[in-house]
Amino acid sequence: MVAEDVDAVLLSIGADLPYFTGYEAMDSERPTILVVRGAGPPLLVIPLLEAPRVGGGDFEVAAWAETDDPYRLIAAAVGGARRIAVGDQTRAANLLAVQSLLPGVTWERASELIARLRVLKEPEEVELLRAAAHAVDRVLARVPDEVEFSGQTEMDLAREFQAMTVEEGHDVASFAIVAGGPNGASPHHEPGDRVIQPGDLVVCDFGGRWQMYSSDVTRTFAVGPPSGRQEEVHGIVHAASQAAREAVRPGTTCEDIDRAARHVIEDAGLGEAFIHRTGHGIGLEVHEHPYMVEGNETPLEPGMTFSIEPGIYLRGSFGVRIEDIVACGADGVDELNQADRSLIVVG
Amino acid sequence: MVAEDVDAVLLSIGADLPYFTGYEAMDSERPTILVVRGAGPPLLVIPLLEAPRVGGGDFEVAAWAETDDPYRLIAAAVGGARRIAVGDQTRAANLLAVQSLLPGVTWERASELIARLRVLKEPEEVELLRAAAHAVDRVLARVPDEVEFSGQTEMDLAREFQAMTVEEGHDVASFAIVAGGPNGASPHHEPGDRVIQPGDLVVCDFGGRWQMYSSDVTRTFAVGPPSGRQEEVHGIVHAASQAAREAVRPGTTCEDIDRAARHVIEDAGLGEAFIHRTGHGIGLEVHEHPYMVEGNETPLEPGMTFSIEPGIYLRGSFGVRIEDIVACGADGVDELNQADRSLIVVG
Repeated sequence: MVAEDVDAVLLSIGADLPYFTGYEAMDSERPTILVVRGAGPPLLVIPLLEAPRVGGGDFEVAAWAETDDPYRLIAAAVGGARRIAVGDQTRAANLLAVQSLLPGVTWERASELIARLRVLKEPEEVELLRAAAHAVDRVLARVPDEVEFSGQTEMDLAREFQAMTVEEGHDVASFAIVAGGPNGASPHHEPGDRVIQPGDLVVCDFGGRWQMYSSDVTRTFAVGPPSGRQEEVHGIVHAASQAAREAVRPGTTCEDIDRAARHVIEDAGLGEAFIHRTGHGIGLEVHEHPYMVEGNETPLEPGMTFSIEPGIYLRGSFGVRIEDIVACGADGVDELNQADRSLIVVG
Repeated sequence: MVAEDVDAVLLSIGADLPYFTGYEAMDSERPTILVVRGAGPPLLVIPLLEAPRVGGGDFEVAAWAETDDPYRLIAAAVGGARRIAVGDQTRAANLLAVQSLLPGVTWERASELIARLRVLKEPEEVELLRAAAHAVDRVLARVPDEVEFSGQTEMDLAREFQAMTVEEGHDVASFAIVAGGPNGASPHHEPGDRVIQPGDLVVCDFGGRWQMYSSDVTRTFAVGPPSGRQEEVHGIVHAASQAAREAVRPGTTCEDIDRAARHVIEDAGLGEAFIHRTGHGIGLEVHEHPYMVEGNETPLEPGMTFSIEPGIYLRGSFGVRIEDIVACGADGVDELNQADRSLIVVG
């Protein structure tokens, strides 16, 4: 805070609050906000009915009853602050209410401050991410023997991936994208009632929470023998993934990782079809800093953990994505996911 | 917008966007924001990789690529606006980024504007809420025969309630609070590894999504024969619930509903143990306007749908809550949940 010339930080929903206090705020219209001040202990402003959820911690607790105004508590707690940083995921309704009580304050995003701490994982954090990655790797290893793609809907398959994610030890399955045939060209496709059929490529992107940390992996399966074009496109994505993983080492910038993958796809003439960045940081949140994207000149450091997930999306036809979580090690890449990256044929 | 003297509205995650457009934004660090302007069609600013998710609609689409600045698109779209309303759940990071590009603008919460529309449900919306309520009623009817409480952990039971919620037709189980014995005194208890035992009261509060609409119901079960004190406290909560439900009719204010329940509990000498409001609106979101809370003088109107959920929380001992969803009908209460409200003894 001193280095950034910030007088107070307000943290609410999302991972910043549990990162610092161990307590995760409920996401609701009732604000829970930790006020971090230059002097004195932090103050957790929390709804009275949720106060019993909080264990101890290096903070004071101000529980507000249903007829109290929590925003006045917060405004009083930051009293005199000129620059206040606010957690990225905080609800706008809360920010607007506090802003109206504190005219003249300069507001900024707390992520500018906090990302620098959270991007560098402790060894124990990397091991939790590795355990989560190995669990989804085990799911992927079960797929060829246990999952019948043909004749099932995307939604059915998404449920199956989520069930296996929990069976392999996650606390909860957070998400599952299953996108078959032409739907695979929509990177964030919502699984629906399209029935998978022979000849489809199916993009499967799923993950869960493992002791507060996240997994996130993608493999693309072929239902029956793939066409030559499908194999070719999958091979390009595979090569892009490999190029990006091999580029990981301390000092390489985030945009260099993006370029390493993108060059392979551009060289194959499909640069226009790779419509997203190459990766995102991962930890307490599925998406967090650092982002592997053009323009991000942040150099990698040991302890950074992130996805490498090149994709090619051919509208009306099919899509391919391969996603792995890696850590930047002292000498190069530390691959947390190790599941087979080849184009696996399923039934 | 004209009535409120607002020049533009920005809507992002949460239910406002699907309410108006049918499209639900993904909750991520990549902003999806609908810009509603006085002149011209609304503009949906959306990440390029998510654009294929959007069907048609009465809006234009501006898809931003990973290296574009979405905030400049938004700022340009609102042009010379002086007053801008922002959806309550919008991430603070997005609001702060737009605010920095638009100095001199007055900002306010869009809920002030939108709640007046969303609180009045169309008959079809009430029927979806009724269908969802009947589905969780069917779960509750199964409990005495199918669920063995004693010897299971809260977490096991929470999973069982969620599975039954889906079995009875919900698209997804959104939440399940199971709070046994002393944990029942924490209204928003996170189910844990405490093993349920004979003599416990167990507060079970769960719900799911049913075609975009929500269910939310609570019953408190007795594991084996309840003590006299447990029966007495349950009876007080039951009477408070009945008083509040009977008070529902057009013209009665929200705070009158709260008072109707609270008086019963205060008259029994336990007012201090009823530590939350009596209810919340429900629809596309589990919690939305109108709130049944002291200070809310909004008169009920036909088509308003909300919970009635008095509770008594005795720290270190036990808790009781009974929650039902009701609609305000033309002549009085329309009870969407109808499951037995008596203290049911389970094994």
